[in-house]
This record gives sequence, structure tokens and C-alpha cells, in this order.
Amino acid sequence: MKSKSVLQGVPVYQPGKPLEEVKRELGLEEVIKLASNENPYGCSPSVWESLTEEQAHLFMYPEGGAPQLRQELASHLNVSTDRILFGNGSDEIVQMIARTYLEPGYEAVMADITFPRYKTQTLIEGCTPVEVPMVEGTHDLDAMARAVNDHTRIVWVCNPNNPTGTIISHDALVSFLDRLPDHVLVVVDEAYQEYVTDPSYPDTLSLVEKDPRVVVLRTFSKIYGLAAFRIGYAVASPGIVDEMNRVREPFNANRLAQRAARAALADREFVENCRRENRRGIERIQAQLDEWGLSYFPAHGNFVMMDTEKPADDVFQCLLEKGMIVRSGAALGYPTHIRVTVGTPEQNQRFLQELAGCLHLPKPKEVA
Amino acid sequence: MKSKSVLQGVPVYQPGKPLEEVKRELGLEEVIKLASNENPYGCSPSVWESLTEEQAHLFMYPEGGAPQLRQELASHLNVSTDRILFGNGSDEIVQMIARTYLEPGYEAVMADITFPRYKTQTLIEGCTPVEVPMVEGTHDLDAMARAVNDHTRIVWVCNPNNPTGTIISHDALVSFLDRLPDHVLVVVDEAYQEYVTDPSYPDTLSLVEKDPRVVVLRTFSKIYGLAAFRIGYAVASPGIVDEMNRVREPFNANRLAQRAARAALADREFVENCRRENRRGIERIQAQLDEWGLSYFPAHGNFVMMDTEKPADDVFQCLLEKGMIVRSGAALGYPTHIRVTVGTPEQNQRFLQELAGCLHLPKPKEVA
Repeated sequence: MKSKSVLQGVPVYQPGKPLEEVKRELGLEEVIKLASNENPYGCSPSVWESLTEEQAHLFMYPEGGAPQLRQELASHLNVSTDRILFGNGSDEIVQMIARTYLEPGYEAVMADITFPRYKTQTLIEGCTPVEVPMVEGTHDLDAMARAVNDHTRIVWVCNPNNPTGTIISHDALVSFLDRLPDHVLVVVDEAYQEYVTDPSYPDTLSLVEKDPRVVVLRTFSKIYGLAAFRIGYAVASPGIVDEMNRVREPFNANRLAQRAARAALADREFVENCRRENRRGIERIQAQLDEWGLSYFPAHGNFVMMDTEKPADDVFQCLLEKGMIVRSGAALGYPTHIRVTVGTPEQNQRFLQELAGCLHLPKPKEVA
Repeated sequence: MKSKSVLQGVPVYQPGKPLEEVKRELGLEEVIKLASNENPYGCSPSVWESLTEEQAHLFMYPEGGAPQLRQELASHLNVSTDRILFGNGSDEIVQMIARTYLEPGYEAVMADITFPRYKTQTLIEGCTPVEVPMVEGTHDLDAMARAVNDHTRIVWVCNPNNPTGTIISHDALVSFLDRLPDHVLVVVDEAYQEYVTDPSYPDTLSLVEKDPRVVVLRTFSKIYGLAAFRIGYAVASPGIVDEMNRVREPFNANRLAQRAARAALADREFVENCRRENRRGIERIQAQLDEWGLSYFPAHGNFVMMDTEKPADDVFQCLLEKGMIVRSGAALGYPTHIRVTVGTPEQNQRFLQELAGCLHLPKPKEVA
């Protein structure tokens, strides 16, 4: 009954503190959670309505291949249906990729400060994670290309990167791909893609069409606001999708998630509004940080990683006691940074006020 | 970009034909699906009501540890909370067990005709499935004990067995455990446990308390009628739960599934009714088969595996064209058997009528 020896080194994921837990622990009635990059606007109202269509089907297994969602998503993305694979969140797709392509003796290259599941899944498969130091919170693609060798099977690129929020450009990604050998899969995790407004951001779907090494991950948990349901997807070559279907759980994407994603996908106005409001929120937060003289990484997702110049765990705790949950950078490799999700204008203002209190800074400017 | 070589031998799961697919393919308006052992009575009405409490939380990640459901389930089962692990259906728990305990070179023992995910997950981990022939549709525990050796890490026991519906008794399981070495995990999959009325059926939770080798799998997909949501669980020693948490996806049990399971768990009357009606349905179906002189395996779950004495795929196709989906035994190792889920009294009667037509048997007795 001994577990695999490699599991001894595998960390258990530390999620953002759940709202319910903080309320219970601190006995607080109102808590604002800006810790898990959830959508402060919730999700499209059409999502709840769509669920009523499933009310009579709760006892029924989902269709494993999610044919209707597949069709609608393929049409939306303008890719063929056989290039799409759904997961129980894109988390599960990270797992499926590792389980399909990694065997003991192989290596996977990733940034040293990025979404932690790439490393965890690499370790679970008994492989070596090769962590390449970031430069100013950004993937060092040059160093990552140099880290690739005959043992490398996967390169993970998180873009925008979680937790720093930085991006790499289309041209940089193309040059990177040019330098990599054929036996390496390049997984570009675009969980925050729909939030990006920078025109230099990669058009990865065009790369997937041409290059069978490229796998793109997207999710309905972020701008679509469906984190409760767990649904994400990969876009890849049909051959890779076929291989990954061998390790996919037959009913991994639940029925309500499939239905909810269809409704969410159709509400383009909701997505547009969220993108615009998120950009405004970033500008507001960054302007205030500029005024205070605090530095931050340029934010392209729905969160801002900022340097508080104080021990991050202390700042986290101070904010928590005021009923605001953020993420401390301490465990992430940035001992004085915190990561805060961009909220509604009111939530952002409240955050800046509480942050000013915790850091003994001047009160933030009032917003109109 | 080569996938793990072991994956080449891994079959892709063939689920029961989805209702939607059959309607689309055959252009039928009304189709009765008795193929996936879903609950013909749906789920407790309180499930849908409970979802309205989550309407404002659709954008929020679930709590990874499912604390409220955990508490309520532990109380219901009378086990401690640290013995429970939730999965995206018990399917995912089969995967987690394999991923935690199997490494190339190891073996896993199972019946030759049983739930196919045990074999698939064993193969994905690069291990050898040792398939022990059933005797009259029942696990041959004696032969399985003899198949265990120094390389064995897991023994899978499906009880009631899917697809035959047979059970092994408490005494037989205890004797089996007595014969097994300490390094073997015995996974007893009780997906259909709540349907069993036979007093000899094992009290596995009492065994889990005493024996750290025992892992029990249960699900909310069957009698609780929540297959759409994907939620199942394991009951095991706290040490095993800890190990498996290392490979668990952080948010594997979705928020709506957690809420639905709490509501379903609380409605004991619904469960009692389903158990009673299912037993009546089995008796009705078995009585008719007796009358026709057709044999079947003694049914303890919510399905009956019967010998049609004709090629099973032909019978399957004949029933399909009449708008009834069942499972052919052909791909399962029983070339003339079909497996039919116990439906409502009306569905059972309709099934028997259509079966009579397909097999050129006398019309079934009318029921009052």
C-alpha cells in the first residue's frame, strides 16, 4: 500500500482562501474575495436560464464528447470540431497532457514563477520540472529554449502569466517555436486570453493550424464566469486530441457545465463589457499605485501583481482582517508582492482604501 | 510529441448510447434509455431547489475539500470526515487510486468481466491488468487471491458487479481479505450499494475502520440520480485519503455537484422509494424471464443481465429501432446477453413487450 515514491515530493495545491471559510473563521458577514481571479460581474444571466433546460435531465450522464458545445465553440473559434478537447476545468487538461506525454526520465520546461499545476503534474508523472527564472515577471523564452534538450517533452507557457500578469508577444512566441525541436509539445495556457487588449498578444489559434506542437488551453472559469461548473478546453491538432482522449475520463465535462458554457459563449455583450470594465479597473489600480510610487507588473489578465514593499504575508493578513481576501506573493517567490483580482469599481476602490490603511499610505483618490 | 507507448493499447471507453444521439440518428421523438443504469425516477425534487441557492455563486470556484458535504456525508455514514475523498464521479476516484499507487512493473487484479475503467486506468499507468475469469457472472475470489503476488498493488472488486449484477457476501469478502498480503489495496466499488437488499451484502464501512487496505467507492450518480453533476466518493483510511489528495485536482468536485449531493443525501424517503421500486422491477422482469425460460444473473443493482439466446448486437439493434436503448453484452464478453436498466413499471413493461417482439416470444403478462 505504498504510494508511488515520486508523490512524496508533490505539494498539495493551496487555493485562494474560500469566501465561506473566511466568513466562518473570522465571523465576518461581508467579505470581498479578490484572490482567485473570479469574475466580479458573475456570469451572463442567460446561464441560469439555460440550466432550467436541464432540470429534467439531472439524473442523466452528460454526453462525453459534448457534441453541441463542441459544435458551437468550434464555430465561435473558427476551428474544426476535431481540434477541441474539454476538461473538468483546464486544470484537468494540464493533467491529461502530463498523463499522455510524460514518462519517468523526461523533462518539462516552465517558468519558475507560474501556475503551479504544471510542476505538480510533471512531478506526479515522475518527471523533472526544469524551472527557468523569469525576467521582470516575464517568461525568459531565450533561456527556456536553451533549457530544452533531448529529454524535454513539454514546454509550458502561461500567457498572460499567472501570477505576474505579463504577456509574451506573437513574434516572440513564433521565434521561440522556430528554435524548438519536433519532439516537444508547447502548451500555451491562455486562461486569461479574453481579457487581453494588447495588440501584440499571440494569435495562437493560427499557430495551432500550422504547427502540431502547439496546444492552447482556454477556460470558461474566468471571463465567462463559470468557475463553479468546471469547464475548460484545449485546441490542438486532431492527432493530439485523439491521444488525449485515451486518458480522458468518459464523463469528465459535466452536463450542467456543458449547457452553461453554451449559454455563456453566446452572450458576447457580457464578455465585451467584462473586458472593458476589467481594463478600466487595471488602469485605475495602476494609476493609484503610480501615485503612491509602488511598482507592479504590467497587468494583462484580470489581476494585478504589485510590490507592497512590506512582508506580503503581513499585508495579506491585514487585508484579511478588514474582510478582503487577496493572494500573498510570499509562497510564490515574491516576498513583498500581493496579487489582487480586478473587481468592480467599488471593490477596487475599497481595496485601495484598505491597502492604504495597511501600508500607511495617503488615502486613495476618490473616483467619480 | 510521442505519447506514452503504453497508451497505444488503451481502449477508449464506450458509453451507453446517449439519448440525444439516438434521437438525432434515428429521428425518433420518444426514446427510452435503459443503458446507463440511470435512475428512472430522476432525483429528489429538493436537488433543483438547492441549486437556486448557488445561483449567485456560479462564478465562484467550489471549495476544494467540499467541507459541508463532507460533514453531512460523514455524519450520514457514521465515519470520520478525514476518511472521505470526493471525485468528479467515482470514475475519477478509480483514476486517482491508479495514479497514486501504480507504477510500471506492478499488477492489478480484477474480474475479467467488470467495470472497464479498472483495466483502462491500470494500463494508462503502464501496469499489468490480471483478469481473473468470473464464475457464473460472479467474482471468483479464490482465484483472485491466488492471482495476487509480490507485484500486485491493487485488487478491484465491483460489488454488485457491473455488468452482471451479482454480489459477493460479507463473509466471502472477509475471508478474501484474510488471505491477502499487506501491500495490496482492496478497492470495493459499491456504486450500486444503496440498491442492494440482500442481507449477506458486505458492511464494508465496518471493514474500512479496521483494515487500512480497504477502500470503498460510492457514487451519487445511481440511486441519488445525480449522474449529470459528476460526484462520487471514496471511504478509506485517513492515510490513503492524504496520499490521494496529492493527485487530486484542486477543484475536482464542482460547486453545483456538492450542493446537489447535500440535498440528495438529505432526502431519505426518495432513496427508500427508489430502492423499493427497483426491487419490484427486478422481480417483475425476472418473473417474466422465468416464464419465457430465459436465464439471467441474479440482479442486485438496478439492472438485469439476461441471456437472449440470440446475438446480442442484433437484439440491441432491434430494440434500438423500437426506441429502446439497452447495452449489448457482445463487447463485454457475453455474446448473447443484454444488460437492461430497471426502469419505471411502465418502462419495464414496454421493454418486455419490445423484447418479446425482437425474440419472437409470447407477449408478456399484463401488469395490474
